[in-house]
Amino acid sequence: MITRERQPPNLEMPFHTLDGAITPTENFYVRCHFPIPQINPDSWSLRIEGAVDQPAQFSLTDLKRFPRETMMATLECAGNGRIFLAPKVKGVQWELGAVGNCEWTGIRLSHLLEEAGIRSGAREVILEGADKGTIAELPRPTGEIHFARSVPIAKAMDDVLLALEMNGRPLTPAHGYPLRAIVPGWYGMASVKWLQRIVVTDEPFHGYYQTIDYAYWRRDKSGPVLVPLAQMSPKAQIARPQSNETIPVGTKYLVKGAAWGGEGGISKVEVSFDRGSSWEEASFNSPSVRHSWRLWSFTWHPTKPGNYTLLARATDCRGQTQPLDRNTDHGTYRIDHCLPVEVQVH
Amino acid sequence: MITRERQPPNLEMPFHTLDGAITPTENFYVRCHFPIPQINPDSWSLRIEGAVDQPAQFSLTDLKRFPRETMMATLECAGNGRIFLAPKVKGVQWELGAVGNCEWTGIRLSHLLEEAGIRSGAREVILEGADKGTIAELPRPTGEIHFARSVPIAKAMDDVLLALEMNGRPLTPAHGYPLRAIVPGWYGMASVKWLQRIVVTDEPFHGYYQTIDYAYWRRDKSGPVLVPLAQMSPKAQIARPQSNETIPVGTKYLVKGAAWGGEGGISKVEVSFDRGSSWEEASFNSPSVRHSWRLWSFTWHPTKPGNYTLLARATDCRGQTQPLDRNTDHGTYRIDHCLPVEVQVH
Repeated sequence: MITRERQPPNLEMPFHTLDGAITPTENFYVRCHFPIPQINPDSWSLRIEGAVDQPAQFSLTDLKRFPRETMMATLECAGNGRIFLAPKVKGVQWELGAVGNCEWTGIRLSHLLEEAGIRSGAREVILEGADKGTIAELPRPTGEIHFARSVPIAKAMDDVLLALEMNGRPLTPAHGYPLRAIVPGWYGMASVKWLQRIVVTDEPFHGYYQTIDYAYWRRDKSGPVLVPLAQMSPKAQIARPQSNETIPVGTKYLVKGAAWGGEGGISKVEVSFDRGSSWEEASFNSPSVRHSWRLWSFTWHPTKPGNYTLLARATDCRGQTQPLDRNTDHGTYRIDHCLPVEVQVH
Repeated sequence: MITRERQPPNLEMPFHTLDGAITPTENFYVRCHFPIPQINPDSWSLRIEGAVDQPAQFSLTDLKRFPRETMMATLECAGNGRIFLAPKVKGVQWELGAVGNCEWTGIRLSHLLEEAGIRSGAREVILEGADKGTIAELPRPTGEIHFARSVPIAKAMDDVLLALEMNGRPLTPAHGYPLRAIVPGWYGMASVKWLQRIVVTDEPFHGYYQTIDYAYWRRDKSGPVLVPLAQMSPKAQIARPQSNETIPVGTKYLVKGAAWGGEGGISKVEVSFDRGSSWEEASFNSPSVRHSWRLWSFTWHPTKPGNYTLLARATDCRGQTQPLDRNTDHGTYRIDHCLPVEVQVH
């Protein structure tokens, strides 16, 4: 793993080590905003409150009576690829490895919400972690705040999982032990770790990580408006070759990577060897599983020496294709344009 | 006037020159986010669009057919008093003079909205100025944006004025010629100058000046949430003495100032000469006029030499009193705690 920050820990996978559709837990990126909370499983509980008929509190033992299920889901940090932005912007300087795909086992959030009873008029569900700390830079609230994000009621009732396990083993402290949300299809910030409180609200939630942080500008008729990040954009990343590799002329080189995001799954991945002038369709090496990335590859047979700029681009089932150029309204997030890989053939 | 920024012009009144309930136009603070737009009155028009039955466009001549009215209203910049914050924060370093009280003459916004016909489900009215420019610091949208703020439909229909005149004369370019909104009771940022477009919306508006700028943190059950600045807090300011004045012992000194904001008008102003240990009630020197400040005074008879810390505090008709301490959740805005004036009696 590549350490981007030591305290709190922020680690990414060296993306060229991509191997297989499931990311081993020890290779899964770690994103922490505050120190990892040390949670005692015996005293831990999850509260549900707000616009519900019956506020509730669940211990780990209480959670055992709900049916468990396992879901594959890709999580990508909304700042993945930030190191490639020009000009440089603040934030963890991720390369390509703040993304991973795991099997998550837990309980559907909908089961808990149904038991608590959502009141009519409720719009969102706030997920709050036990992790907390202070923010230095204005505008920020004073004192300690918890990491918290919201999802609309419809999403919460559809497919949000409260995960106890990752790849068949209990969550590790860095990944949210004892319980984390998995909001499939959304950027990682929504999948709140160390979950301790769920608040159902009548109004859109405007917490720090929903407005100042983890938001972007959408162009409305009224002008640009600040919107919380949500769904992951369609994105293909090249794992091999790495930038600056030299490839012998005449080789049959297996260009490979992963693609995820968008609506309804990835339907196509294309590769370009001339900075986007022409595109070749890649093959998929893993099945289409809802909310899971797909591995892809393309056998490249470079016959002429020279410098080549490789790009990959994904198209989702709705026909949305990755753009070539950066949308600067995304600020320091949602780096979903095609990132070039420069190689030398000789 | 004190120049705080030359380009764009940001000027404040030296508050110790306060004299009379109406601020002369040439003493009224100027707050500009972008260069003053040069508007040709013959080609200018005001558009109304969005969630209305009949989008409309009004020239200055068109506006003449609506009834005019005159309203007194105090406007205070939400950053007034910022220079006194410790630690120092970014933003125009206003002392006490980014506030003023004028007679505004124009047309009720409700008349135009009634003519356009507000659709059911509409929630807010966005007021957009002709002033525009780029923002340097992230998070910000790319390219030029217009200054824009919203008010809830109820406020728009209640008492928002579209002012053509200030103190009986057409608006000057610095004050929004040819048309500015006056949102009485709210901080000045809502009273959009150089008004050119009104957009009725179904959703709360999350433009730049509503989220990143001109917002503060409110404590909800779910934690701190970002909220656009709106109503002015109750506030009394001391115009005389000024800080560091020396006052001869035994003088009958007329301490005076103005008070505004809060709900339902200011009902009481108190003055302290011992940094808030004891308080004396001041007299009002101007009548209670909705949304207009009240002048107040107190005759002080200091009989002992020494250093004195004067404070003034206002209480509104709902019983809300200015706090002694800064609420840091207000960030760089809403500086509504009691600001000390240090004087020497000898």
